[in-house]
Amino acid sequence: MSIDLNSDVGESFGSWSMGDDAAMFRSVSSANVACGFHAGDPSGIGATCRAAVAAGISIGAHVGYRDLAGFGRRFLDCSPTELADDVLYQMGALEALARAAGGRIRYVKPHGALYNTIVHHEAHAQAVVDAVKEFGGDLPLLLLPGSVALEKARAAGLRGVAEAFADRGYTPEGTLVSRREPGAVLHDEAEVTARMVRLATEGVLSAVDGSDIRVEAESICLHGDTPGAVAMAAAVRAGLDEAGVRIEAFA
Amino acid sequence: MSIDLNSDVGESFGSWSMGDDAAMFRSVSSANVACGFHAGDPSGIGATCRAAVAAGISIGAHVGYRDLAGFGRRFLDCSPTELADDVLYQMGALEALARAAGGRIRYVKPHGALYNTIVHHEAHAQAVVDAVKEFGGDLPLLLLPGSVALEKARAAGLRGVAEAFADRGYTPEGTLVSRREPGAVLHDEAEVTARMVRLATEGVLSAVDGSDIRVEAESICLHGDTPGAVAMAAAVRAGLDEAGVRIEAFA
Amino acid sequence: MSIDLNSDVGESFGSWSMGDDAAMFRSVSSANVACGFHAGDPSGIGATCRAAVAAGISIGAHVGYRDLAGFGRRFLDCSPTELADDVLYQMGALEALARAAGGRIRYVKPHGALYNTIVHHEAHAQAVVDAVKEFGGDLPLLLLPGSVALEKARAAGLRGVAEAFADRGYTPEGTLVSRREPGAVLHDEAEVTARMVRLATEGVLSAVDGSDIRVEAESICLHGDTPGAVAMAAAVRAGLDEAGVRIEAFA
Amino acid sequence: MSIDLNSDVGESFGSWSMGDDAAMFRSVSSANVACGFHAGDPSGIGATCRAAVAAGISIGAHVGYRDLAGFGRRFLDCSPTELADDVLYQMGALEALARAAGGRIRYVKPHGALYNTIVHHEAHAQAVVDAVKEFGGDLPLLLLPGSVALEKARAAGLRGVAEAFADRGYTPEGTLVSRREPGAVLHDEAEVTARMVRLATEGVLSAVDGSDIRVEAESICLHGDTPGAVAMAAAVRAGLDEAGVRIEAFA
Repeated sequence: MSIDLNSDVGESFGSWSMGDDAAMFRSVSSANVACGFHAGDPSGIGATCRAAVAAGISIGAHVGYRDLAGFGRRFLDCSPTELADDVLYQMGALEALARAAGGRIRYVKPHGALYNTIVHHEAHAQAVVDAVKEFGGDLPLLLLPGSVALEKARAAGLRGVAEAFADRGYTPEGTLVSRREPGAVLHDEAEVTARMVRLATEGVLSAVDGSDIRVEAESICLHGDTPGAVAMAAAVRAGLDEAGVRIEAFA
Repeated sequence: MSIDLNSDVGESFGSWSMGDDAAMFRSVSSANVACGFHAGDPSGIGATCRAAVAAGISIGAHVGYRDLAGFGRRFLDCSPTELADDVLYQMGALEALARAAGGRIRYVKPHGALYNTIVHHEAHAQAVVDAVKEFGGDLPLLLLPGSVALEKARAAGLRGVAEAFADRGYTPEGTLVSRREPGAVLHDEAEVTARMVRLATEGVLSAVDGSDIRVEAESICLHGDTPGAVAMAAAVRAGLDEAGVRIEAFA
Repeated sequence: MSIDLNSDVGESFGSWSMGDDAAMFRSVSSANVACGFHAGDPSGIGATCRAAVAAGISIGAHVGYRDLAGFGRRFLDCSPTELADDVLYQMGALEALARAAGGRIRYVKPHGALYNTIVHHEAHAQAVVDAVKEFGGDLPLLLLPGSVALEKARAAGLRGVAEAFADRGYTPEGTLVSRREPGAVLHDEAEVTARMVRLATEGVLSAVDGSDIRVEAESICLHGDTPGAVAMAAAVRAGLDEAGVRIEAFA
Repeated sequence: MSIDLNSDVGESFGSWSMGDDAAMFRSVSSANVACGFHAGDPSGIGATCRAAVAAGISIGAHVGYRDLAGFGRRFLDCSPTELADDVLYQMGALEALARAAGGRIRYVKPHGALYNTIVHHEAHAQAVVDAVKEFGGDLPLLLLPGSVALEKARAAGLRGVAEAFADRGYTPEGTLVSRREPGAVLHDEAEVTARMVRLATEGVLSAVDGSDIRVEAESICLHGDTPGAVAMAAAVRAGLDEAGVRIEAFA
């Protein structure tokens, strides 16, 4: 029994800091490192890569739309070609800093609005997949189960890795409860930990209506930038350790 | 007898275009490709790389200060660490796009204010050299002869390649005539061509005072963004061809 | 009989130039000046304002989404609050440069994707109208006839000024022919000129199917950044002059 | 007896926050509001202006070099014309947001590297002064005593307001102790408070060598972005209140 724990890191920019990467590195096995388009300046990215390498954590390219002011959380209607080239650019930039730190990119996880858009947006999903193929090395893509991007990644011969969200509620259909609905975000450490242990050991989560659903997940996403995030991550990690679940990077 | 001809390309950005890369590619053997910090968006960089690969032209990383509004022509007093990471980031970004185009970075040429600054600025010169070392592959650096950066590159075990400027006047000491002085910029195609043929065949240029000086140059820089640039480049290329000088990328 | 002629200007950025503002100023009565978010750096904006003031041309704020890389031509799903504040910021920035040049903003025309989005996007349309109200002075808004934004501007007590596009074909319903359809863009100077004379004198245009349609327009938009744009603008201006139509800023 | 207390605010950007503006507003009388070039997005600037207006605090334009990645703390060798236009642009942008919030700009304080540069850099100092003159209204400039910019402001007929730094040590010559020297930054709340009370009541500070020096200051700068900043500001404010010094905006 094993699972991966991933978190967004390297999201500081210049004099602005975001999250507590060092603390999150004590809990996760995979680090989604910002690549400069939604967050992350080169020196901060470099420092994050060095810390990830030192902690034995797998480095992923956390690529996003070109939108610093919106932190990549706003859909940007770029052309598929522009998007593919933007993704390639970000991957290459991170790869150079990762290699200088003694590591390299092991996977790709789209960020924010791009992540959400390619759940359904065919052209943007394909553009991300194309960029990963063109980068070379056939890196896995970390995505939402059921997303168009996951299908397209697999169709292109890439490994599509599905993830669950530790602190999010699920509908009976296995999708995330919308943030506009009650039960969308879970705050109780014990509850979240118990859910993630059950997911890792049985592949099952209880949905908002109380029913049990199967959720495909080789990785669990732990948020790092919300109040209590570090404590929540540590609790989930400790719970999984105790339950005998091995925490292991998927890539 | 052979020499390299280099020019700045890929300096368009979004809807703004700069220079006529396709025309310059008919004359040069090395392409200094913008990396996004002073100019160059990912799609434009990608297209430039594909064109360079198709034309058999060597791709160099034209790295600059982070200053789109100033086109990298303004000194930016960043720390050496920031500069080294900015250079690594740019090199990696270009490398990914170059590889997707079937090529790869063969050398590094700093741009604009960075190029001029590291003629004398020890810390920024060392930062650029450090970044090139950290990138791996010990790529050559294309620089001004006599510059601090050239010394530091060689001291670090990198190949430092000196270049001459086709359309610039030289002092008797072998430095460029300041743009504030008469004779700084040469506009006559025949004169410039004759000078470059003499440089390539004898290693000698005549200075503004009429004296002959030896100029170290394995490459000649041809400007691409001034009126008449394309015609000047074609004239120099034709003159060298006629004189039996082989045009050959240094890297 | 009078009409306004407007064109986008001030869209250079740093070392990149766009269009021939000086030439367009010989034809138009209203200048849509870029405000820095899709194009326009402060020095270029300032120079454009001085030229507009010298030529007696009305200055409008050409506000756009924050997207230099996409030239404001890509929809950006920002929140209405962010959009309203972005518009205010741009208006204020332009106002300071216009005042230093001896002028001031007389109207607002949204640019590119923002212009097209607020034809139908209720929240973004309202955000633009809110920003113009908050700016003070109840400036008119230059918009597409029939657009949601035009309705909202008028509902808010602002003057909504409708414009026609000189070089675009119209459907029998009075909307622009899609750029994916034949007849979307007109290239013949004589034809375009005759159409605009008829529009200015009779309020009528012939649609792609040959039928006559009434088009609401107090202003005609002349493109400045396409090949032949300057000549087209001059032809339309000359045709209107000859037909005795007075060219006059609407604001 | 009265003095002004000023602090930098509005320096968040998008999802990144900086400082605790609400807390600082309980201590200061003047708010140096970021204008978007070194920090500050339009929505954050707008919110800061509304909070300042609600608290009865004077709004100043905290203008800087165009350098988000460096937070305006790196010298940028722009031309004086570019700088003047950049300052005008920033002032106008802030003015629109301040007016929408029911206030307006009352003064200008250059930020970071620009502030430090115009202590001695004649051309950049003059450019800032020129921009403030061109903006209109002859706003006062808040500057370091003895700086070239202060002289140039006064020579141009502007009010030059000198400020002291609460947490900085002074040389016997009345300049700030370099951050590379011991005694540059003071951390003890009681000591700093006592020094500021003495400055406000006697115009005197004790220098690092123990000697008393006269320091010209109509305002005291309280840092808001360092650990303990809020407590330090509150302590200084309370100490001045207790000593019967009226805290009053200079503009």
